[in-house]
Amino acid sequence: MSQKTYKIGIVGATGAVGQEAVRLLESRNFPIAELRLFASARSAGKTMTFQDVEVPLRALDAEGMQGLDYVIFSAGAGRSREFAPVAVKAGAVVIDNSSAYRMDPNVPLVVPEINPGDLKLHQGIIANPNCSAAILGTAIWPLHQAAGIERIIVSTYQSASGAGAQAMAELESQVGQHVRGLPLERSVFPHQIAFNVFSHNTAVAENGYNEEENKIREELRKMFHEPGLPICATCIRVPVLRAHSESVVIETKRRLSVAEAREILGKAPGVKLVDDRDANHFPMPIEASGQLDILVGRVREDLSNPHGLALFVSGDQLLKGAAWNAVQIAELLVAERA
Amino acid sequence: MSQKTYKIGIVGATGAVGQEAVRLLESRNFPIAELRLFASARSAGKTMTFQDVEVPLRALDAEGMQGLDYVIFSAGAGRSREFAPVAVKAGAVVIDNSSAYRMDPNVPLVVPEINPGDLKLHQGIIANPNCSAAILGTAIWPLHQAAGIERIIVSTYQSASGAGAQAMAELESQVGQHVRGLPLERSVFPHQIAFNVFSHNTAVAENGYNEEENKIREELRKMFHEPGLPICATCIRVPVLRAHSESVVIETKRRLSVAEAREILGKAPGVKLVDDRDANHFPMPIEASGQLDILVGRVREDLSNPHGLALFVSGDQLLKGAAWNAVQIAELLVAERA
Repeated sequence: MSQKTYKIGIVGATGAVGQEAVRLLESRNFPIAELRLFASARSAGKTMTFQDVEVPLRALDAEGMQGLDYVIFSAGAGRSREFAPVAVKAGAVVIDNSSAYRMDPNVPLVVPEINPGDLKLHQGIIANPNCSAAILGTAIWPLHQAAGIERIIVSTYQSASGAGAQAMAELESQVGQHVRGLPLERSVFPHQIAFNVFSHNTAVAENGYNEEENKIREELRKMFHEPGLPICATCIRVPVLRAHSESVVIETKRRLSVAEAREILGKAPGVKLVDDRDANHFPMPIEASGQLDILVGRVREDLSNPHGLALFVSGDQLLKGAAWNAVQIAELLVAERA
Repeated sequence: MSQKTYKIGIVGATGAVGQEAVRLLESRNFPIAELRLFASARSAGKTMTFQDVEVPLRALDAEGMQGLDYVIFSAGAGRSREFAPVAVKAGAVVIDNSSAYRMDPNVPLVVPEINPGDLKLHQGIIANPNCSAAILGTAIWPLHQAAGIERIIVSTYQSASGAGAQAMAELESQVGQHVRGLPLERSVFPHQIAFNVFSHNTAVAENGYNEEENKIREELRKMFHEPGLPICATCIRVPVLRAHSESVVIETKRRLSVAEAREILGKAPGVKLVDDRDANHFPMPIEASGQLDILVGRVREDLSNPHGLALFVSGDQLLKGAAWNAVQIAELLVAERA
């Protein structure tokens, strides 16, 4: 019996997330009939290799959206707003990595480990959450199911790659300038990223929180179906190339012991427990990089609250925080159709 | 009228903290009759410049402790335990940067902005707090006085220099190896520090917290005279050369508005408010480096608790976290004697 195959589009194929999506479709042996790769007009005419075939890169236009089954968008909110409706009108299901539709009440915002049931509510577009929200949500959802999370306090340690390939290059080039004794130049980030940490480079809203922090709060509430969940986030950039880390304190309705929390996390899908106190070995971004799972550790009682639990989390924001979550959604949609 | 002058000893003069202490005594024009600099036997015979005079470095021994008025120890807990009592017996007052005596009930643990009154209780030894505790305490003490802090949740972003000059050199050398495409070598830290973050490199105690986290909790409680203050700390190393940062959430008995908190912090001694939302300019370690004051910003309501307030703090752990706090204590002692 021949497997059904699908026509897939990737918008932003040459970006940090797009490249990962192409590699994942390849390594997961996604049932592909046609792969259409969209990039900027600048890249049109070049090719990318997919399963030993050279696939041409084409500029994004309405015509290119015709006849596709699934399109993964990773080219910014503007491109998604313009072309996702075109793709949907042409009959495709869009999985959108941008922030364009995440808080749209008609668009499900999905992490497959958290709310796969929301997928069936889609009207053509499914949104992929913000990377920090996806990583945090995947890590704490099993604890929420077990004990009811009533408050979240999170401080992030976000890598340069969250701001794209150019931001990674800026960290690399500043480090090179430092080694050669040259002044450090910057153009992507508002502050020096090498040997520094700074508050996330998104605008600060009226409530005092920057966009990234507000996304974590709003998107987590939407995915958890907990519209009033109290969340306090502090988002900080650190000079790490790839993978975000998060220091998390949760308060639960039912008191969770460390032993129970570790047991739950040890069995949770999408999560890997890295919690070796004797070896001082806990989640680190260099170990989370390239992994589909979220690393969780430093599981301990919050000594400031009897219903509190503290955790440290690292996850690859290009994978679970973006490309892998999108491909997971595509796999679920295909499985439901099969 | 001639000013009274004092015989000062610095134990660990060539270390990261010792060097800063020497520079501060110089720049503050501390009233010095004699400066005696102690280093390892290896350095003995070399000199350090102090106000254009070459001061010989001598090996630490009991004889060297005779006849001094004040001795600042920054050579590790072992050296302090062995030689601080010798110095005290010989009539000196010891200001100890190590952890040796901090939790000794007979030894005051002092940050001059917090508990200067405790100085008069000393019996020869005064302890300088852990760097992260000093930075956090200085930043939040004025808010505690105004509104009564009832809970603290803190996640740190600690620089390599907190682990000494060799750790800074390891970060520099790993970055150089990365730029040259070589494998990254490590000997000081248990994990790669370049392009990585990891849980603080101190042993994890029975309660799940590492030594640094337990120090923050215990030392802050002692300095604040709040033995039961609920504190949850997560200590993380980041690839920053100098200055520690901390993401802090406090809960206060009396609700503090953002405006009131900013006003209090803007007038507080030892604190500099850096809180420009429009320019996205907040405390950063590269700006805190070399400053005596602690930078405080990101002052905002904790959206997860009506009595909560969130802050971000950066402070030079070699200065306010160590050498400057010690010299401040010496200045207070001299002022009281004058």
